[in-house]
Amino acid sequence: MPTHDHLRVDLAALRERTPLVHNITNYVVMNLTANALLALGASPIMAHAEEELDELLGLASALVLNIGTLSGGWIHSMHRAAEIAVRRGVPIVLDPVGAGASRLRTDTALSLLRTASPAVIRGNASEILALAGAVGSTRGVDSTHAANDAEDAARQLARTNGCAVAVSGEQDFVTDGNQGFLVAGGHPLMPRVTGLGCVATALVGAYAGVSPTPLRAALAGMATMKAAGEYAAARAAGPGTFVPHFLDGLHALTPDQLVATPRIS
Amino acid sequence: MPTHDHLRVDLAALRERTPLVHNITNYVVMNLTANALLALGASPIMAHAEEELDELLGLASALVLNIGTLSGGWIHSMHRAAEIAVRRGVPIVLDPVGAGASRLRTDTALSLLRTASPAVIRGNASEILALAGAVGSTRGVDSTHAANDAEDAARQLARTNGCAVAVSGEQDFVTDGNQGFLVAGGHPLMPRVTGLGCVATALVGAYAGVSPTPLRAALAGMATMKAAGEYAAARAAGPGTFVPHFLDGLHALTPDQLVATPRIS
Amino acid sequence: MPTHDHLRVDLAALRERTPLVHNITNYVVMNLTANALLALGASPIMAHAEEELDELLGLASALVLNIGTLSGGWIHSMHRAAEIAVRRGVPIVLDPVGAGASRLRTDTALSLLRTASPAVIRGNASEILALAGAVGSTRGVDSTHAANDAEDAARQLARTNGCAVAVSGEQDFVTDGNQGFLVAGGHPLMPRVTGLGCVATALVGAYAGVSPTPLRAALAGMATMKAAGEYAAARAAGPGTFVPHFLDGLHALTPDQLVATPRIS
Repeated sequence: MPTHDHLRVDLAALRERTPLVHNITNYVVMNLTANALLALGASPIMAHAEEELDELLGLASALVLNIGTLSGGWIHSMHRAAEIAVRRGVPIVLDPVGAGASRLRTDTALSLLRTASPAVIRGNASEILALAGAVGSTRGVDSTHAANDAEDAARQLARTNGCAVAVSGEQDFVTDGNQGFLVAGGHPLMPRVTGLGCVATALVGAYAGVSPTPLRAALAGMATMKAAGEYAAARAAGPGTFVPHFLDGLHALTPDQLVATPRIS
Repeated sequence: MPTHDHLRVDLAALRERTPLVHNITNYVVMNLTANALLALGASPIMAHAEEELDELLGLASALVLNIGTLSGGWIHSMHRAAEIAVRRGVPIVLDPVGAGASRLRTDTALSLLRTASPAVIRGNASEILALAGAVGSTRGVDSTHAANDAEDAARQLARTNGCAVAVSGEQDFVTDGNQGFLVAGGHPLMPRVTGLGCVATALVGAYAGVSPTPLRAALAGMATMKAAGEYAAARAAGPGTFVPHFLDGLHALTPDQLVATPRIS
Repeated sequence: MPTHDHLRVDLAALRERTPLVHNITNYVVMNLTANALLALGASPIMAHAEEELDELLGLASALVLNIGTLSGGWIHSMHRAAEIAVRRGVPIVLDPVGAGASRLRTDTALSLLRTASPAVIRGNASEILALAGAVGSTRGVDSTHAANDAEDAARQLARTNGCAVAVSGEQDFVTDGNQGFLVAGGHPLMPRVTGLGCVATALVGAYAGVSPTPLRAALAGMATMKAAGEYAAARAAGPGTFVPHFLDGLHALTPDQLVATPRIS
């Protein structure tokens, strides 16, 4: 079971090894996720040209696939990157943005699930319910469900795919299909900032590059979000000032704060 | 005539109904406009893949088309989205970024005007003059004219297309071709921040999803910009710190402040 | 030799002439570089559609080419834009992001070097070493070398291509192949913010639009980064709050501060 000591070790390892995280992600969050990875101590690269995927993944410690602003060429690149990462043993983290809101997104997420055999899937409750085949209504990219509505779906998805699943919400739920953890913390402003879910996925990617198990990487990533969220909430006057303080919080985060701040149960 | 009571009602309706605003917009402003929509109380989605336009527009309360970083595929998606939105009765707001600066931009804006029958067009004076066929010189995407230079062009454009037109400037001008309003407020730093015009368009889109008339939506959107601009100007030390405070201002904005801050005449 | 008086003159000229800087750049930094150009006093346009390149470059004072998130269509647009700019006498600044990390990036940068005959190349040490054909190891887009490791390579690259070269680092190195300058200043947080290298390139582009020599433009751009970096460092609590203060610093920068702050030797 991931313990507080594991969180400490994993954050220290991330800072020491500065894992290169290769992202094929959406246009909306590219800047924010790159900054979040840099602030925490990882090294981001954003690249989608097929010609360079093999070389760049040869340098990478993790691959993050995020389907937020899909189009045909990008879907093709994501599949190609997934194949290369699988072959090279680079762990993959999948963010099924908007799964359930359109057939294209649901189908793309499901087909990437097959190609990529991801180490971790990170989504909101609506997205995880959609991927698990549960009947759910989704409206756009914001969740219409609380994370604990999706606990069963997350466990099932994790078991079926042999991966960890992280469901974001007021309380996050993280599971490998067997064990399950709730992560409380953060702040109600966080859903009012675009792309913090995508940031969570990217940070899980950074931890996946240094952590011995997907479950530990997922838990460390979600706990990091909660801790930096509380740092920002103490300093922000709204969702706009939240963002720069949140990035500062990632940079300032110590292993001790990471275990002291979020409530994991 | 839109009154202060209308502004109050429309902001309250936006907060209560959290309209989903579908954006096909430019790369530069995607993050900022998504954050502005979230901060004010709407729900943004950015998506341009043709395969999912019909499903997503089935969930949307408004469609925002912004031609800021054009290319062939995106123009095609914008036309397709416009057709679907027209069929579904989803109001469309058009931002003709850079119209007049290149034939591609002017032609794309004019052809979207025909396909989309927009509820509102929001541009700077140079762009509105270009769309109205007036002889004007445009240099890039920043206006070389004051908003009141374009009042006649805006009225004509509104009448010809049966829509509302909002011209951004030190004083905005908003018209449905019949009535016309000046909206004063904001701050001289605002043209030194990229994408605030695009944000205005997106916010008009959010109001178009809840407001009974395009004129009201346009006026509410522009007044909201001025109010949040003054909130930010009171806290910012330059164009960089302006942005997070501006987003905070959108989030903090009350119906009372919305009617008290901008000077509408 | 560029002197302090030249820096003063060039910043004053930039503020007075507000050069239009045409950028074909990467998705990650579009918003930040547009804001940096506006904050300093230039006027940015981001456009990559081939149909409008000729018209827009007819208005532009400089062209910035940045290969950060490559794909086939964008490479083609960059070559086309380079050809037009050469024909029109518009100075070009090239940012070879990630050269050395993949063959696609190295080859694209080298082929743009031939098409564009850039006035200035701005890169980190790893990128400049890669372009100069030196044996170097690059890991992703962050430099694995200090700027002074690349001094000889930068001089050689400048001589071979008849251009100025700026190498970013804790101390920048700027050369036209003959003279060479070190620019000290800034802050260790700067490599923890994504895209500040790309911002340096864009600002060099703005100066290239008003400055009589590429060397002066390169030196003014790098000195501006250092000065605004120190402004931000004095106000920021981490890499997140650094960004808005940095943009404020560009806006607040006076010719006197520009010569007083960075240490040029």
